[in-house]
Amino acid sequence: MPAAAPALDQLQRHLHTTRLLGSISSTLYYDQNTVMPAAGAPWRGEQLALLAAQLHERQSSEAYADLVAAAEAELDGDAPPQRRRNLQLLRLELNRQRCLDPALVTALARAQSHGNAVWQEARASNAFATFAPALRELIRLRREQAGQLADAEPVARSPWEILAQPFEPDSSKARLTELFAPLAAELPGLLESVAAAPASGPQETFELAEGLQEQLCSELLDSWGYDAARCQRSRSAHPFSCTVGPQDFRITTRVVRGQPFSAFLATAHEWGHSLYEQGLPRSDDHYFPWPLGEATSMGVHESQSLFWECRVARSRAFAERWHPRFQRGLGSDPWGGAFGFWRALNPLRPGLIRVEADELSYSLHIVLRFELELALLEQGMPVEELPAAWNRRMEELLGLQPATDAEGCLQDIHWAEGLFGYFPSYALGHLISAQISEALEQEIGPIEALVAAGETAALQDWLAGNVWPHGRSVNAEELVERVTGRPLDAGPFLTYLRAKVGQLSGAG
Amino acid sequence: MPAAAPALDQLQRHLHTTRLLGSISSTLYYDQNTVMPAAGAPWRGEQLALLAAQLHERQSSEAYADLVAAAEAELDGDAPPQRRRNLQLLRLELNRQRCLDPALVTALARAQSHGNAVWQEARASNAFATFAPALRELIRLRREQAGQLADAEPVARSPWEILAQPFEPDSSKARLTELFAPLAAELPGLLESVAAAPASGPQETFELAEGLQEQLCSELLDSWGYDAARCQRSRSAHPFSCTVGPQDFRITTRVVRGQPFSAFLATAHEWGHSLYEQGLPRSDDHYFPWPLGEATSMGVHESQSLFWECRVARSRAFAERWHPRFQRGLGSDPWGGAFGFWRALNPLRPGLIRVEADELSYSLHIVLRFELELALLEQGMPVEELPAAWNRRMEELLGLQPATDAEGCLQDIHWAEGLFGYFPSYALGHLISAQISEALEQEIGPIEALVAAGETAALQDWLAGNVWPHGRSVNAEELVERVTGRPLDAGPFLTYLRAKVGQLSGAG
Repeated sequence: MPAAAPALDQLQRHLHTTRLLGSISSTLYYDQNTVMPAAGAPWRGEQLALLAAQLHERQSSEAYADLVAAAEAELDGDAPPQRRRNLQLLRLELNRQRCLDPALVTALARAQSHGNAVWQEARASNAFATFAPALRELIRLRREQAGQLADAEPVARSPWEILAQPFEPDSSKARLTELFAPLAAELPGLLESVAAAPASGPQETFELAEGLQEQLCSELLDSWGYDAARCQRSRSAHPFSCTVGPQDFRITTRVVRGQPFSAFLATAHEWGHSLYEQGLPRSDDHYFPWPLGEATSMGVHESQSLFWECRVARSRAFAERWHPRFQRGLGSDPWGGAFGFWRALNPLRPGLIRVEADELSYSLHIVLRFELELALLEQGMPVEELPAAWNRRMEELLGLQPATDAEGCLQDIHWAEGLFGYFPSYALGHLISAQISEALEQEIGPIEALVAAGETAALQDWLAGNVWPHGRSVNAEELVERVTGRPLDAGPFLTYLRAKVGQLSGAG
Repeated sequence: MPAAAPALDQLQRHLHTTRLLGSISSTLYYDQNTVMPAAGAPWRGEQLALLAAQLHERQSSEAYADLVAAAEAELDGDAPPQRRRNLQLLRLELNRQRCLDPALVTALARAQSHGNAVWQEARASNAFATFAPALRELIRLRREQAGQLADAEPVARSPWEILAQPFEPDSSKARLTELFAPLAAELPGLLESVAAAPASGPQETFELAEGLQEQLCSELLDSWGYDAARCQRSRSAHPFSCTVGPQDFRITTRVVRGQPFSAFLATAHEWGHSLYEQGLPRSDDHYFPWPLGEATSMGVHESQSLFWECRVARSRAFAERWHPRFQRGLGSDPWGGAFGFWRALNPLRPGLIRVEADELSYSLHIVLRFELELALLEQGMPVEELPAAWNRRMEELLGLQPATDAEGCLQDIHWAEGLFGYFPSYALGHLISAQISEALEQEIGPIEALVAAGETAALQDWLAGNVWPHGRSVNAEELVERVTGRPLDAGPFLTYLRAKVGQLSGAG
């Protein structure tokens, strides 16, 4: 860093400390979800609130604003573009923080906590009506938040778009509608064709012992370069990946009775998230602790977890290589061979629950939620109409009717905490993963062949060279265009699914 | 809290936040020692330093000093004695903090870190000479620290005494000398008589499988009221107990090859620490987050861990009850019955290493260190003379000569970090445990009988009623006098040891 930029230097120290505080919060979160006894929850809540208040102060104070302004004033024509971009990203975030009325922030926090509690109840007793008022209030507050934030946006954005920015920077509903349209058009037909095909062998009626699942997860991670000196794996109620320090990466899994592949595939998924975090740029003054050293969007993050879960661990070549280990561990072969094992790893059946959905139907769950969020936030749909609208569209997209709202519009936690704009990232992850995979295959050959040859390290190297080092230098769509040479679209994902459906429906 | 004490109210909120920060630090410490990957260490160091700086600021700032002064000004004749004592303790700590030159604090932190590193090296290569300069510097800085702190002390104290205050408030070297004299006088003879007795059966040449040790530890804790909703047990390199929130208690153990009882007895020990923490008073305005809600001294803390380890888990009745479980788990009986098993739990052999010492020799290790600390800090003994002085006194007290300084004066980490005044608490723990046990037995009957009847809950109830709720209302010696009706002395401990040695030397 040039000596002539003292404010930049000071700003970097400020961001470094902010990162320390944020990572302390992450450590507490990890502890809470892996080992903290239940009675520790209220105190943990107070600890996290204290850190959140400190973080908010650091990111919105007058002193911090002065620091950013001073660093901006130091920018001259010779400033490297990375520095310019870092300051732009910090300025945007600062302006957003400062637009918000603290009273609204407090009201939102309270409404989120209330919404979560009421939702838990409503879901347990399948009583949407008890949740409706909380949801209405959350929508009202989020719209108010979007209104306050509008002034900070560099371009005109609708309320839903403003709320989606933290998850998917620069995304717009027009663009998402365009990206998702081919999914809604083609996937229901593909699902029907799968349903019409003859049944694919015996149902899974086996369990993998917990110790065996643990061992298979360890073997998987070891074969994918897991380094115990930088990583830690634990158990938690829900799998997650979490970065606790620049050289400290954690992932968690769980063993679910009745779902023998759940821990294994979740391990692949969370490891994909972690690899992206591990590969983010930290090497010079423009990256850590600056914004450019961060993940660029939830969609890109998800593309990396889905790559390892779906493109690798659910591939046919992977099934061939791992079938013997599962068979040996189990002491029998309920799949009747590697092809049956591959099919078992890829059940293609529409279901009501998003988090249990396969590659074929997952995006349709997202399309449904995206449409309903727009209806609720921007098209004046009363919350009372949500269950009926949900069920109608679920029937159209997936051919299913929830028997209860608990397995319908009450299934996800997101709306209960007023998180709108988050869902599309999950589907974008599938599209981005597929398009990046296409580019990867053009350069280093088919993923199936590399997996068959045991060369997953080549996949990792390619991602490490082409995807991860960009950080926030580019947004998600720019990243895809940079990596693949053309704008993101649903084509590669649909091509991949058509081929996979064809092979899975075949005779093996 | 009366409405007429607004400063007190504000001070309580201040202390509450200080507790939050301190417990965040504890959580990071727990994470670091149980799951953090090695590469996370430098960042974790930065996180802890940030929290330490915040804590220091909160405990020494002008604003905090004003708050304490304002709360003192609110005290009137009607103020409850607990409030008066809380403010006295806060004032004392504040005065100490404010006596210290920040430059010295920084120099000490650097010297501690340097001392630790040099000590690791010196111990590994058995080269005291390379450690000597670091030790000399640490002694110089600690003496300087004691000099700065002297003005804050409410009574005249020697440098060593000032340094011992954080561990054992109000302790004096005259009193410790008086307490320890009977130990140095009687224990060497007792040790000799044990050595002269015929060998007590076969050496342990068995290993307990890790899974079995884990299971036995779990059974032990379950039988002692372990509540998974408030407690968490993990593995770490060294066993410890740690309070992470007012309702969140952690203990750790380790499995050591060649030491089949290590995990089991360490679990008993750490659980004793945890029970004390769990039983500290939190019930009204005078306790948590005030000083009165804290542990009163390291010696009292140690007395509670030693009670469960030595008085309960090493008792003959306990051995009778648990021998079948160990035998069943192992599938054989290398002890030749419950008496042999009890003997195996109580090996009485002098050894060179403090942390491996038994009840009989442990205090002699402490007497040695106490005397040498006084020599180094107050009697001008040059650090070069430490190895020879150590070996000479070791021969006199324990009849052993270290072959190397690594198993002599370089064995402990304490001096490498300039911790002087800490060791006596370990021996005080034995004395306090024994004297409290005597009072307990007078009230509810012999521990052996209660353990034999499976009534360990009665032991816990008695401690919960008589020992734990005092917190810092009284210091260690006042606590003992309150609980047992007379001043602390070494009598009960020696009486207990004489009886135990007699029984262990018997034929079973």
